[in-house]
Amino acid sequence: MQTQAYMQALQLTQHGLTLRRDYPVPIPGAADALIRVTLAGICNTDLQLLAGYMPSQDLILGHEFTGVVEACSAQPDWIGKRVVGEINVGCGACPDCQRRFFRHCARRTCLGILAHDGAFATYVSLPVVNLHEVPTGMEDRVAVFTEPVAAALRIQEQLSIGPAQRVAVIGDGKLGLLIALTLQDTRCDLQVFGRHDRKLGLLAARGIQTENVADRELHVAEREYHAFDIVVECAGSGSAYTMAQSMVRPMGTLVLKSTKAEHTGHLDLNTLVVNEIQVRGSRCGPFAWALSWLQVGTRSGKFPAAEIIDCEMPLADGAEAMVAASRSGALKILLQP
Amino acid sequence: MQTQAYMQALQLTQHGLTLRRDYPVPIPGAADALIRVTLAGICNTDLQLLAGYMPSQDLILGHEFTGVVEACSAQPDWIGKRVVGEINVGCGACPDCQRRFFRHCARRTCLGILAHDGAFATYVSLPVVNLHEVPTGMEDRVAVFTEPVAAALRIQEQLSIGPAQRVAVIGDGKLGLLIALTLQDTRCDLQVFGRHDRKLGLLAARGIQTENVADRELHVAEREYHAFDIVVECAGSGSAYTMAQSMVRPMGTLVLKSTKAEHTGHLDLNTLVVNEIQVRGSRCGPFAWALSWLQVGTRSGKFPAAEIIDCEMPLADGAEAMVAASRSGALKILLQP
Repeated sequence: MQTQAYMQALQLTQHGLTLRRDYPVPIPGAADALIRVTLAGICNTDLQLLAGYMPSQDLILGHEFTGVVEACSAQPDWIGKRVVGEINVGCGACPDCQRRFFRHCARRTCLGILAHDGAFATYVSLPVVNLHEVPTGMEDRVAVFTEPVAAALRIQEQLSIGPAQRVAVIGDGKLGLLIALTLQDTRCDLQVFGRHDRKLGLLAARGIQTENVADRELHVAEREYHAFDIVVECAGSGSAYTMAQSMVRPMGTLVLKSTKAEHTGHLDLNTLVVNEIQVRGSRCGPFAWALSWLQVGTRSGKFPAAEIIDCEMPLADGAEAMVAASRSGALKILLQP
Repeated sequence: MQTQAYMQALQLTQHGLTLRRDYPVPIPGAADALIRVTLAGICNTDLQLLAGYMPSQDLILGHEFTGVVEACSAQPDWIGKRVVGEINVGCGACPDCQRRFFRHCARRTCLGILAHDGAFATYVSLPVVNLHEVPTGMEDRVAVFTEPVAAALRIQEQLSIGPAQRVAVIGDGKLGLLIALTLQDTRCDLQVFGRHDRKLGLLAARGIQTENVADRELHVAEREYHAFDIVVECAGSGSAYTMAQSMVRPMGTLVLKSTKAEHTGHLDLNTLVVNEIQVRGSRCGPFAWALSWLQVGTRSGKFPAAEIIDCEMPLADGAEAMVAASRSGALKILLQP
């Protein structure tokens, strides 16, 4: 009989964030792997969870991570492998799960988001079926972007996007940058609207048209009005929704990427009907595609990890790291357990 | 030189509805036909216009009509023909109009809705390109449904719907009934949620599953929760949007049909993102298809005009007819100029 081991973990409770040094190491189930986390990333969703996005729960945060499998009774071949993990854990029994579509299982838990302790910890447990091996030679600080890159690529799973289309991305946050970088593959006519010269500059250096709209409030220029076939909203602010609805052409598509504790924007229902707009909610995406995209992108310079990462901080400074990640203009902050 | 003739017309002004007996007969442009209206229908959009849906304008209401062409200098062959008319009038010059897609021309006017006097009048003027001839033998009281049936069929232009799909229609109003009757053609697994036994009974008599939810408020039964691939919202009430979002399955489609002066409902943005819902705004549809659907439906009994029409009233009683049309449970009220 194994004795219970303890670890360090950043826990969200009703009182806020607490660094726990005595948190039980998860005991993997029969189909699970125990993974030692080597690097984790702070996402805006973590900040929204802190702001009350989900119903009150005690939970270890963190859903962007890479690590090494330390235990896996079901498939011992995994032990020692470097992995990333899909975050939705299905019930395994429902029709969605039977066709391996865990993302929308009605009884799913979600790593670091809903009823499943996350990766801001020394160890994390996930079903083997959720794991993807990290390619040899890929650095941890690249692999840790698999989850958000997959979320960006999800848009290309949902919509057919090509060179004939004008596409606007509204928002130059961490996800906005990854969406813009991945959309560049489609050779669409891409324009990114943001509020931070540093982040927009990172895209402009890769040939992407950008525009700083920090001074604009709700104003949309005439050349932008109804000018885009597809508009991707990933800023989450009220003004971003207003801009997005002004920019998308009649019968065009508006992609929604933001989940927020409190939405300040809304969709105008009359505009959706009269202009026959298509709205597509978009969440988690394909990990295998994200890993290969990161591999190619790192070699080609298309994915500039060094520029997207603000800093790496020890997990013990997690609360401070969350504050830093919430500052306007912040880019990716990584946590080392 | 022709002298100006005058006619009867039901005008919306900032003071409300006025029956004008001295309104100038429209003078058709070079590409237009002058049509003597034989029958017009009151639509919920007329009621919403009265409630302030569009910016203040002096306008003859009415966009559902049938009539006879009395003058057409461009194409005299049309004279004497019975017609229905598409309601969107494009500028004729923009790229959308060049490919005959007037419905979304940015400079369009819209019969009886926006900057184009409508059909609650003795005469109406429309471009010849908007006209469709009414098939021989089709009664006026059937042909007058062409516009709303086209709007119902628009859904089938936008989405591929077939026997494998569960479809919910929320709303048993005039448009809701036509949507349900047209969707029956797709052999989808159809269920209509409404609030009026009389209207639901009309559908049930044609083999459509119905449910009266008048007592329910926002409650959705467990068997309905996330149970539908496609949900069509055509009630326009706040509770209808709430029900629709509860009923549509993850990655399902929510079709929006209601335009309102004031929306009491809204779309929950987090739900759209997390469940990756597709929302489709849907407005005007294919007239030629609608005419042939009405022709077949009248013969087969699929389209029960007599049951959908509450009454025919003289245009002179138009204001009273609008009040009758706004009563809960009202069906189609027709106006005879």
